[in-house]
This record gives sequence, structure tokens and C-alpha cells, in this order.
Amino acid sequence: MKNISSFKKECDGALIEFLQKKETELSTMSNDASILIRIISSFIQNGGKRIRPALYYFASTSYGIDKNEAMRLSLTFELFQTFCLIHDDIIDQSPLRRGNKTVHSQYNIPTAILAGDMALMLADEIFFEKPPSASVKQTYDTFKQEVLLGEYLDSTNHPDVETIMDLKTARYTFIRPVELGLQTAQVDQKIIDTWKHIMYQIGIAFQLKDDLTGVYGIEVITGKSSDSDLQEKKNTYLIELFKQNASTDQLKVFNNLFKKKKLKSGDCDQIRSLFTQCTIPTLVQAEIIQKVNNSKESLHSIPYVKLHDLVEEVLAHIVDFGMIMT
Amino acid sequence: MKNISSFKKECDGALIEFLQKKETELSTMSNDASILIRIISSFIQNGGKRIRPALYYFASTSYGIDKNEAMRLSLTFELFQTFCLIHDDIIDQSPLRRGNKTVHSQYNIPTAILAGDMALMLADEIFFEKPPSASVKQTYDTFKQEVLLGEYLDSTNHPDVETIMDLKTARYTFIRPVELGLQTAQVDQKIIDTWKHIMYQIGIAFQLKDDLTGVYGIEVITGKSSDSDLQEKKNTYLIELFKQNASTDQLKVFNNLFKKKKLKSGDCDQIRSLFTQCTIPTLVQAEIIQKVNNSKESLHSIPYVKLHDLVEEVLAHIVDFGMIMT
Repeated sequence: MKNISSFKKECDGALIEFLQKKETELSTMSNDASILIRIISSFIQNGGKRIRPALYYFASTSYGIDKNEAMRLSLTFELFQTFCLIHDDIIDQSPLRRGNKTVHSQYNIPTAILAGDMALMLADEIFFEKPPSASVKQTYDTFKQEVLLGEYLDSTNHPDVETIMDLKTARYTFIRPVELGLQTAQVDQKIIDTWKHIMYQIGIAFQLKDDLTGVYGIEVITGKSSDSDLQEKKNTYLIELFKQNASTDQLKVFNNLFKKKKLKSGDCDQIRSLFTQCTIPTLVQAEIIQKVNNSKESLHSIPYVKLHDLVEEVLAHIVDFGMIMT
Repeated sequence: MKNISSFKKECDGALIEFLQKKETELSTMSNDASILIRIISSFIQNGGKRIRPALYYFASTSYGIDKNEAMRLSLTFELFQTFCLIHDDIIDQSPLRRGNKTVHSQYNIPTAILAGDMALMLADEIFFEKPPSASVKQTYDTFKQEVLLGEYLDSTNHPDVETIMDLKTARYTFIRPVELGLQTAQVDQKIIDTWKHIMYQIGIAFQLKDDLTGVYGIEVITGKSSDSDLQEKKNTYLIELFKQNASTDQLKVFNNLFKKKKLKSGDCDQIRSLFTQCTIPTLVQAEIIQKVNNSKESLHSIPYVKLHDLVEEVLAHIVDFGMIMT
């Protein structure tokens, strides 16, 4: 992805520079405690696509915000994401993240809690460096709090999958970073609303693709076990759709498998086969394609800006089903 | 305490009102997830003296800040404290706080992490409602980050007790809330520096008193076991002072006791007796009184304002040794 990968390079340079400065500053208070910054720094350098900072950056620079200022503010989104992931990994008891040990596995829960807290504080430190407008500030508060609500629902295995998808992916990853960029650039509210509608469609499509990959992904391409979502009993849209489409017998077989304490690989194969019988992957793919097409149509209604290119890249990535078992 | 207790009443009213408004707002996103707000609300209503918001409030109103505005901003300090305590309790694996179950004991670790995160976000939501000056914003960032560093050192049983005391108590509870109030009121830097010096002395005295009470407190008055600090192997100034004053034999007895995995009540009595032989409680009391007297002297150098009364109350509380075994 041309735009994202070149953005990532520049963004990471700025992030590392900021964190080095911060480490120096905090080490005057306590040299030993500045390890919290080094943890954040190596976490960030271990991977990630920088999709949220990129969306913010292209949204604001597309409408006239100075590039240096936009780059500086975009760091907020990656630091906030670092906070989310470090705490989420404790909550989900995940041993691995991006192929490396999670922070709490490498250190311990106290250190991971504090490193996550620090990442959130750094996100705010950058965001409020220059006072944002009242509306930008309000959207930023909402952006932060929404994702916590989504995470809470997720942590309790709440059955309302659509609300979780909406809060954790559509709003958090897509709608809010773009909205904040556009609000900062004082874009007309009608244009903001159209972009938000597009980002909502993309957000849901992105999540559906993620759910599909989680169960039907080819492991050597995705780098993630295609059994893990099922084994974690993750309540995804695939399961919801299956429940709506399955016969009483199919549902009975599924429920008997899914209530097992530990799903074996064979159990997962059987569930996948049940899903396939109900054409779930085809239905989900169709829904993804429909949402992507809707987005493309709406994109044409907005005069071209650089943000279009980034969004097209994201859309191309979503409709690439090369990593899906067929 | 006249000033603090009447302040607490008003502050709690404002806190509850804010949290109710917030709960209504967030329940439109997800009714079930707004429990995070209710957790924060009942945590706050379970106790606490509101010393940090009171210091902020009296510091800013003493120098001309509007009372309503100061009260609104003071809520930041109690919400931030709520964040600290909820996360600290997970870190320290404490089952009880203020006589009630800690949040992670009553619910679970994921919910406590998220409730703490939410409290931090609410503290920021209030603090940035009206854009603070650049210097106030910088002090606020420092205030937040310092306490994390202190907590990190504390969680690793770091031997530098003085730095921990400085970060976790002197700066966090006393210096920064007053400094932020004075900076908001644009008080002359020389006056700010004098107040900071006073608050530093008070902070250390307060921590020493807390350490003394932790080992020599009369349980029926303090409501806390006087064995718990020792049993938690808390590295306090009492222990540091003992190590400096003890004979080789006394040190040997102490080390043999302290390295035990679980200290029994008799072991704690023996440690207390070793401390007493080395006149540790008398030395600590003397140091507390000296710091309090230094503060009083410095207080006279600043023209009288309402903040003086609050500080006098705090000092009177610190030099009250009625709960100490003699």
C-alpha cells in the first residue's frame, strides 16, 4: 500500500523521536522508571500498519492543515492504540501480539498496566499541545471513551456483536480519526457527514473481513491460526449469521461443539464445515463487497482529495480475498 | 477539619452530578457498558478526604479564580486519584480499600482496568474543557506522569524510598495540585516557588506520619492493621532509618526476620521492638515535627490567604500523634 507504507515510515520516525525526547525528560525524574517509555517504544516498533494516524493525517492535510502539524498530531492515534492494545492483551490474557510476547507476558501485569497508562497519557500530551477547538475536543473525548465501552462489552462476551463492531472498529479505527482530521481542518459539516458515512461502511466491511479471516484464513498467509477465534469463543458476525441461517439440526450440532470447554482442531473443522454448508463465507463476502461498493459510490460524491487515494488503498486491501480458504 | 470537610461535601455533590450526566450520555452508546461510570461513582462515594481537590480549589480561589470554575476543575484531581487507586489496587493485589472490596475483587481485573482507564479519561475531559495555558498544561502532564513513575518504582520494590516518597506523595498529593491552582490564577512565580517548598515539606512529613502509623498505629483508631506494612515488606523510611542506626547484631536479627516468607504477628512485634530500641519512632516524630515547623515558618513569609487555613488544618492533622503507640 503506497500511501500507507510511505506514511508509516515517516510516522515511525516522528514517533521514535518523540519517545526518545520523552525518555530523556522522564529519566531526570527516575532513570529506572523511564523503562515504561522504552516498553512503549519497542511495542510500536514491533509492527502495526498505522492506519489510524494515516487516516487522521490524510483527512486533515487533504483540507489544508500543515503537514508537520498533522504528522505531530497523528502520533496521538498510534500512542492511544498502543494503550488500547497493551491493556486489551491483559484483559484477553493474550500471550502473543504481532509475533512477540505481549507486554504483560514479557514483564508482568503491573508493568503492563502502567505502560498502557503511560501511553494514554502521552497520547493526550501530544493532542493537547496546542488547544483544540471545542468540537474537536469533544469528538476526541468521545473517541477515547467509545472504545473503552466496546472493550468492556467485548470482555463480558456481550451478545450485541453489532454494537461492539461499531464501537471497536467502525468508530474507533475509521470514523473518529477521519472526523477529527476534518474537524481540525474546519471542513463543512455536510462533507464531514459524507466521509463519516463512508468510513462507517468501511469499518463494518473491515471487521467482517477480519472475522472471515479469523475462521477461514490461510494460516501461512495470515500468520494467525484459523482456529483461534473459534477457540476463544469470539462472538463474531459469522456466528450470528450462522444462527440465523442454520437448520434446527445444524444448530444442535454447533451448540454441542461450541459449549465444549476446549475446542480441538477437529471441532473447529466441523464448525467451519457447518458454516460452509450454510454458505456463511459466501454471504459474508457478498456483504463485504456490497459495503465496499457503497463506499465507492459515496466517494464519487466528494470532490477529489488525497484522502480518496488512501481510502481506495484500504478498500482494495479489504476486497482482496487471497488469504481466504475457498 | 472544618475547611476540608465542608469542601468535601460540596465537591462530592459536584462529582455525583457530573457522573450522573456522564452515565446518561454514555448509556446512549451502550446501556450495559455505562456500568463503568457507576463503578467510579460508588468508588468515590465510599470514602476519601478530597485533599487533592481541596488543595487545588483553595490554591486557585485564594488568588482570584472564580469559585464555580475552581470547583469544576478540582473534580479532575479526584477522578485522577480514582484512576490511580483502582489500578494500584490491581498492582498491589489488595483485596480491600476503604473497608470495601477493591474493584478488581468485586468484579474482575478486566473491568477494573477499564474502570480505571475511564476515570483517567474523565479527569482529562474535565481538565481540558476550557483550554489551559501552556504552562498549566505542562504541569498537568508532569503531575500525571510523575505518579506513574513513582508507582512503577514502588511496584518493583525499588530501594530508593526517598524518590518514591517524593513522586508518589510530595509531588502528586501536595506540590502539583497547589502549583496547578496557583498557575491557573497566574500567581507570581516567586510566591509559587515558596508554596511549592512548603508543600514539599508537608508531603514528606505526611508520608513519614503515614509510615509511622503503618507500624505503630493503634488499630482501633487507624482502622488498619499495624502489621500490614511490615507483612507487605513495604520499603519505608522507618526501615531505611533503622538500617542506618542499628548495630550489626540488631541488623542481623532484623534481616533474619524480614526475609521470612510470611511474617507472623510475633515477628512484627519483634521488629517493632528492634525499631524502638533504636529510637526510630522518636527520630521519625522529631523529623515530622521539624518539617512541620519549617512549613509554618515559610507560611508566615506569604501574605495571608484562605489556603493558609487549609494548610494549617493539614499540619494539625499531621502532628496529631494520638493514634501512635507510645
